[in-house]
This record gives sequence, C-alpha cells and structure tokens, in this order.
Amino acid sequence: MPILVMKFGGTSVATLDRIRRAAKRVGREVANGYDVIVIVSAMSGKTNELVGWVEETSHLFDAREYDAVVSSGEQVTAGLMALTLQEMDVPARSWQGWQVPLLTTSAHSAARIVDIPTENIAAKFGEGMRVAVVAGFQGISPEGRITTLGRGGSDTTAVAFAAAFGAERCDIYTDVDGVYTTDPRVSTKARKLDRIAFEEMLELASLGAKVLQTRSVELAMRYKVRLRVLSSFEDNDEHAGTLVCDEEDIVESNVVAGVAFSRDEAKMTLISVADRPGIAAAIFGPLSEAGVNVDMIVQNISEEGRTDMTFSCPTDQVKRAQVAMTAAKDSGEINYHELVADTDVAKVSVVGIGMRSHAGVAAKMFEALSREGINIKVITTSEIKISVLIDRKYLELAVQTLHDAFELERAS
Amino acid sequence: MPILVMKFGGTSVATLDRIRRAAKRVGREVANGYDVIVIVSAMSGKTNELVGWVEETSHLFDAREYDAVVSSGEQVTAGLMALTLQEMDVPARSWQGWQVPLLTTSAHSAARIVDIPTENIAAKFGEGMRVAVVAGFQGISPEGRITTLGRGGSDTTAVAFAAAFGAERCDIYTDVDGVYTTDPRVSTKARKLDRIAFEEMLELASLGAKVLQTRSVELAMRYKVRLRVLSSFEDNDEHAGTLVCDEEDIVESNVVAGVAFSRDEAKMTLISVADRPGIAAAIFGPLSEAGVNVDMIVQNISEEGRTDMTFSCPTDQVKRAQVAMTAAKDSGEINYHELVADTDVAKVSVVGIGMRSHAGVAAKMFEALSREGINIKVITTSEIKISVLIDRKYLELAVQTLHDAFELERAS
Repeated sequence: MPILVMKFGGTSVATLDRIRRAAKRVGREVANGYDVIVIVSAMSGKTNELVGWVEETSHLFDAREYDAVVSSGEQVTAGLMALTLQEMDVPARSWQGWQVPLLTTSAHSAARIVDIPTENIAAKFGEGMRVAVVAGFQGISPEGRITTLGRGGSDTTAVAFAAAFGAERCDIYTDVDGVYTTDPRVSTKARKLDRIAFEEMLELASLGAKVLQTRSVELAMRYKVRLRVLSSFEDNDEHAGTLVCDEEDIVESNVVAGVAFSRDEAKMTLISVADRPGIAAAIFGPLSEAGVNVDMIVQNISEEGRTDMTFSCPTDQVKRAQVAMTAAKDSGEINYHELVADTDVAKVSVVGIGMRSHAGVAAKMFEALSREGINIKVITTSEIKISVLIDRKYLELAVQTLHDAFELERAS
Repeated sequence: MPILVMKFGGTSVATLDRIRRAAKRVGREVANGYDVIVIVSAMSGKTNELVGWVEETSHLFDAREYDAVVSSGEQVTAGLMALTLQEMDVPARSWQGWQVPLLTTSAHSAARIVDIPTENIAAKFGEGMRVAVVAGFQGISPEGRITTLGRGGSDTTAVAFAAAFGAERCDIYTDVDGVYTTDPRVSTKARKLDRIAFEEMLELASLGAKVLQTRSVELAMRYKVRLRVLSSFEDNDEHAGTLVCDEEDIVESNVVAGVAFSRDEAKMTLISVADRPGIAAAIFGPLSEAGVNVDMIVQNISEEGRTDMTFSCPTDQVKRAQVAMTAAKDSGEINYHELVADTDVAKVSVVGIGMRSHAGVAAKMFEALSREGINIKVITTSEIKISVLIDRKYLELAVQTLHDAFELERAS
C-alpha cells in the first residue's frame, strides 16, 4: 500500500480533543488506502515546561540528560495518539525514536539523522498495522542514549521518514493553513499559495515565514519529498494548504512568489576600515565567536586603502557586536575609524524562482519603493531573492507596496 | 566500592527543590565511600495525570501504549536528578529501564522483573561514575517494548537492583520516618520501630501500613536485602528510620511488633449453605471473577449437611459480592438461605514473630478486648498474626487497648 507521512505539531495535539481530531484525519487517509506514518510533537507547552526544569536545575547542563528529559513529551503524545486510533478501530502502535530505531549523531540536543532503517515498521505494516505513530524530534546515538534533533526537529523527522519510506507525500499539519504571499496581518491582500518551490520556501522560511523548519525543507528538497503544509483546524479538501515541491511541478508561476520581512534588524557600519587581504575574516570571525548572527554583508570602497563595511544582525545582538569589535580593535586585529549602529531598520525581501528568467525585478522593486519615498539603506541579492534594509517605520508600507507592484493578490 | 541503593518516592522528588534535597543525601553517601544506585519515581501527581489521559482516551486501553505513556514520568525525574548531582560535581548519569536493560515479562502494566544484567552500569562505575540514576517502575519486554511494573513498582525496582548488585543496603526514602507499632493518629503512644522482621513487615503492609509495597518486601526477604525505610524530610542519623531485615538480625524483640487495622471492612455471611465438596470454590470463584477482594474467611458448622460461610471484603465491594452470590444461587451453582451483610465492622490485628514461641498471645488479646466490652465477631489466625473483626465504633479503643496490653510503647 502507498505510504503517507502526516505530522502534527504541538498545537495540533495540545489536548485530548485535538488528538482525537488529528486521529480522525489519519483515519480518513487509512480509509483512502494509505499506510500512514504519523509523527507527533509534544503537547504544546510541555516541551517548554521540561526545558524550564532542566535550565532551572543546571546552567551548563549535560545535553545527554537534557535529551532524556525533553524527549519524554513526544513519547506521551505518541502513546495517546496510538490509543486514540485503536479506539477508532484503526490498527496502530507507537514507536519511540530508539525503537524505530532512528539513528542519529551524538550531537545531543542538536543531533542529525544518520539513518532510518525501515525493517521494523515495514514488518508491522506487513502484519496489518495501518498506522505507525512515531515520537518526533528524537533518536538514539551510537552510544545508545536518547538524542533530540533540536527545536523544530519534528518537521525534520517527518521529512526523513517520508524519504526513507518513499512516501507519496508528507503532510505537515500546523496552526496556519498554508504559505502566504506575505504576512496577512501586514497586508490584507495576502494570498495563500497553492504551490511553492523548495528554493522559494527556503528563502521565505529563513526570512521569517515561520511555517516550516528550514532543515526540513532542505531535506525535502534533497530527497524530492513532496511536502504539504495545511491546517489542523479546518476541513481540508485535496487542494487545501500549500504544496512545497520541485520547481518542475510548478507549471506556471508569478515572477515573485512572496514578500518576506523581518522587523527586528540592526544595521552596523565599520567606517574607514584599513583594507587588506583577510580583513573580512578578521571582522566576522570575532563576531561569529561572540554569537552574533550576521545576515547581510555589504562592502563599499570609500577611499584609497580603506573601506566601509556594513552588516546587519538582530537588534538584541548589537551590544555583543560592539563589544567584539572594540576588543578586536584594541588587540590590533582590525583598525577602523568608527562603528555606527542603526537599530531602527527592517528588512524586506521579494522571493521567487521566476526572477532567474525575468530581468527587471530589482528595478521594479526599487522604483516602487522610491515612488513611496522609502529610502533604501542596504541592498543584497541572491539568485531568487532581493533584500533591502529600510527605516522600520516604513515596513508595512513597503510590504503593501511591493505586494501590489508584483500583483501578488492574483494567482498566475 | 560498596554499593548502596537509594529510592526516592514521588513526594520526595515532587519539585526541583526536593530533588535538590534528595541529591544532597545521595552526595553524602558518595562522600561516605559508596557507589550509589538511585531509583526515582515520577514527580508526585505526574503519574496520575498521565494515567488520567490514557483512561480518558480509551476505556479498554492497550496496556503497551499505557506503559509507553506512563513510564515517561520517571524518565523526567531521572534526568533531572542526574543533572542536579552533576551540578554538585558528583559524576552521575541517568538510565531508563530499557537502557539498563531491566528485563521483564510481557505482562504490560503489571510486568515482573526477569533479570537485571549489571554489566552496563558496573562498567560506568568502573570508569568513575559514582551515581547511576535509574527510572523506577519500568523495564523492557522480550518484544522490545516498554513495560511498567504496576503501582508501587519503584520500591520493587529498588530492591531488585539491590539484590542484583549485592548492595549493602536499600534505603527507601518516603514521607514517613519509619514503621510504627501502630498508626500514631490513632494512638499517641505509637512508637517507631528500629527494626522489624520481613515477615512482620509483610503482615503489617498487607494490613494497611502503607509504607512499603508488599512485593518489594517479599523480594527483599527472598534475596536477604537489608531494607531501610526513612524520611526524606528529616535529618537522618545512622539509627534513623526502620530497618526491615532478617529475623536473625533482630537480637531481642517484643512478642508483638505492632497493631495493624483496617477501617473499611464489611462482613458477609451466607447462612445455611448446602455443604458439599467443592462448595468453597463454588462461592469464592464467582467472587474473585467479580473482582471482590476477599480477606478473612471463616466457616462454621451449623446443622447437618448445611454450613454458614463468613467472609470479609472492602465495604465498597459489598454490592458486587451480593450480585455475584445472587447470580450463583440463581444458576444453581450454590444454595443458601440468606446473605447477610454487616458493613459496620473494622479489622484489628496484632503481628509479631515472637508469637511463634510465646503461647497466650491470643488469650491476652481477647481478654483485653473483652475487658473493654468489645465484642469479637470473627477471628482468624496465622503463624505471626491474629486478626479480629469488631464493630467499627470500637476501632480506636481496640487499637489503644491492645497497644497498652502488649506494652508496645516500650522498646524491648
């Protein structure tokens, strides 16, 4: 029988009632003729409770013990989901990570999946079991200890199972009903996308569309797993949600798929840096060590032998960046005239695989912003994305303007 | 290094603060030169929450899923305890049942321990680990699924570990500071016993002194594990608590060790039962099937070919017993004149290994009760116990009277 993977996040299994609703969806897919692998998260709030206990117990905690404690949340949901399915006369059983076994590296609390042997679960499907309920987010290390994959690891678990079992599709049930052209809270014209390419989803996810965990999208792209995002709280027909898929599966599409943004950005400029080979490493090495997540980087030539270096990072990391740069200057590793921080900026990006073949996207974007009097402070581009930093007060206006300019309210 | 097993019940690990207090006790024993195996229960209330979810999900639940869900409580405490010990610079790690592995039968939710291979934990002790924190109450079946040992299974886990590792002692930390000659709430003269024999403890436990789970005492008796019951909430010196030990280790003792009682008893009499071989089985078979926990049984000869059969059971099972007996009469399996239920009785027992060699204990007991005008309704005796049913209103008086009569306020 064809295999379907269905993943339910924390809010979708937050109560026994919601587990029952999720189980009904699973039951319908079994009736449709699928053998189903269900991946569950912990009931929402549970993981935070467990993490809170660990952190209160120990500041520099042993990640192996952290994993043993935190993985228990998914274990509970998996058992309850299996029981609920059995109540509905659907042959089901639960599997914990180590029982599958889902083999991972030993990097506790941020482990990577090494392999998912399919024999155990496949054998049970052969005996008539119709649903394997698997505790998400966890596995077992070569040392035989429980590992966790880090936050969002349940999405990754689901995609990895879909790849290992050659599933027809991987359905991710969550609290939103799909991926939108932009945040509906910012633009009322935001439209749900029926399909989106893996590459676009990656750019949108890392830019703040918090629907799918980035790693799970990367994995799906690598193994060509058809990924569908849809809501736990609505009745879904076959066109529900958003299918994240290979570029080839998208017959026709807009040049730009969506407008992403990030409100919480700071722009920092090192003015008049003494330019020499290796200067970038000398700047960004210390920043990385200080835990500063640098996003955009732009280098401008200013005068002979000296340059201005601009980068962006989350607002709450500005202090850390300043300390690191001052230290690097004091130790003589780098030399600059001044460090200027602008904490009142936001980032807006347009994303779309159509850009590759359509010239003029950047021009159209800059023109639209300029028409509204929005000054662009920094620009970076990649193959399918153009990002700009602007004053934060113009963020909503910029998103709405770009959504209109690229006619995103209309399906292609 | 000598090995000590320390078990902490649910109230002793109910909060992070209490876990810290328990860890300090463990740290002291490590400083005393022991390698310690700590057995932990779930934080109090957690198991009930999990069981509640399972029962709400499914009435006739799959016990394998029940075990997967319910065992998670101990898993959390084990991790937190290991982290707390590490914070105190005590080398520790947690072990779940399946990691030890604690091998059990497949009787889910009431599994029996089959074996505890000591290699894995012993190897870690060899590498310098000083404390193995083991999640109590759980193991793994031959099929590779998580099993639980049933309520109170953490005590049994502790004793089984002590037996497997040849531990010097098994300390059970709980919310009482030892075993008393009777319930201090009933007699202010109740005295804590320094030592008590396994056999006495078994009789006291099954009669309502809910300090230790019966199975754990049986196991300790079989493997001669020295068992100490003591309080988590007090400072304990080396004479703290009560040592449950072999009869031979009790140098001198009172004839009677304690007075146990059970308030919630009902006396039921089948009057004028047609007597024939197998009549007892015909009566108690259906009672057992109906889930009636029959305690005392007394048969009186009343007239030629007929007999009166009296038994006791918990008050809330009277209805069930009546239904079962009426059905057995209607189906012709048994024949009796009348079924009389007396739900206003209580049971009082005196227990002591000294009885074996001292005649006159029964006479002294009956005389003391009679002096107070307390009528005895049923008597049963075993080698080290004499139990009587009396009117419930006399219960407190009877306990105090017997405590005085056998001079239990004085140590031998």
